[in-house]
Amino acid sequence: MQYYDDLEIGDTKEFGEYEVTKAEIVEFAERYDPQPFHTDEDAASESAFGELVASGWHTASICMRLLVEGTLEEQAAMGARGVDELRWKRPVTPGDVLSVRTEVLDKRVSESDPRRGYVDTLLEGRNQHDEVVISWIGLGMIERRSPDG
Amino acid sequence: MQYYDDLEIGDTKEFGEYEVTKAEIVEFAERYDPQPFHTDEDAASESAFGELVASGWHTASICMRLLVEGTLEEQAAMGARGVDELRWKRPVTPGDVLSVRTEVLDKRVSESDPRRGYVDTLLEGRNQHDEVVISWIGLGMIERRSPDG
Repeated sequence: MQYYDDLEIGDTKEFGEYEVTKAEIVEFAERYDPQPFHTDEDAASESAFGELVASGWHTASICMRLLVEGTLEEQAAMGARGVDELRWKRPVTPGDVLSVRTEVLDKRVSESDPRRGYVDTLLEGRNQHDEVVISWIGLGMIERRSPDG
Repeated sequence: MQYYDDLEIGDTKEFGEYEVTKAEIVEFAERYDPQPFHTDEDAASESAFGELVASGWHTASICMRLLVEGTLEEQAAMGARGVDELRWKRPVTPGDVLSVRTEVLDKRVSESDPRRGYVDTLLEGRNQHDEVVISWIGLGMIERRSPDG
């Protein structure tokens, strides 16, 4: 198990592989983001995108899945306060295969609770052409190995 | 249909009602955010949360659904570049009923394409006790009614 004390600023990791199907794009969008360019191929072809594209929240959720499997499962993670600078940089379309790269940007011990630490992590989601399709800075919380550091 | 030209800084709107069930919390989390405090009631009771809580990405996706139904469906929306200051302020638990409040913070015409405008919108998701559970600033794009303004 990895704790706050085991993470260093500058640590990077690359992991994951997730193929995004047309069926999943439409299923997610019909439930959570029913805009025509996410749910309807014909409407999407007449939109500014020109083709069916995944909801940005779907792309984020897929990267979260990869993050949990690739990192958080082996960490004493305590959830996140939020995310800064979430950006959808390129469309995600059916058949794209996503992977994730993370980099620890900052870490500090909580002033109110010395048993936890804050870790800010840049996440980049990339497609099979190594193009960044999404990025964000996660504001995570993680347990300390010992309160004395 | 509402265009860039119809939106004013300071415009506010409140809308939506979405009951978050335990089944949906677990279903979303098993697929996209399989951390124990999102997927397993027993594990959640031993976590810092003390009970099963929705994935933050699930809460965001539910608010997106309300946003599409309450606003975007009647707008010439062209998607979003991203989101700033996404914050999960309180846990969302089974039985919570979410609604949404939006406020237009800023608007400006695109310099590269006078047919589109940028609109920054604060979104707050609230529970049935009127407590803010999530907030973000959406960086949206929307068509102009006419390029001459």
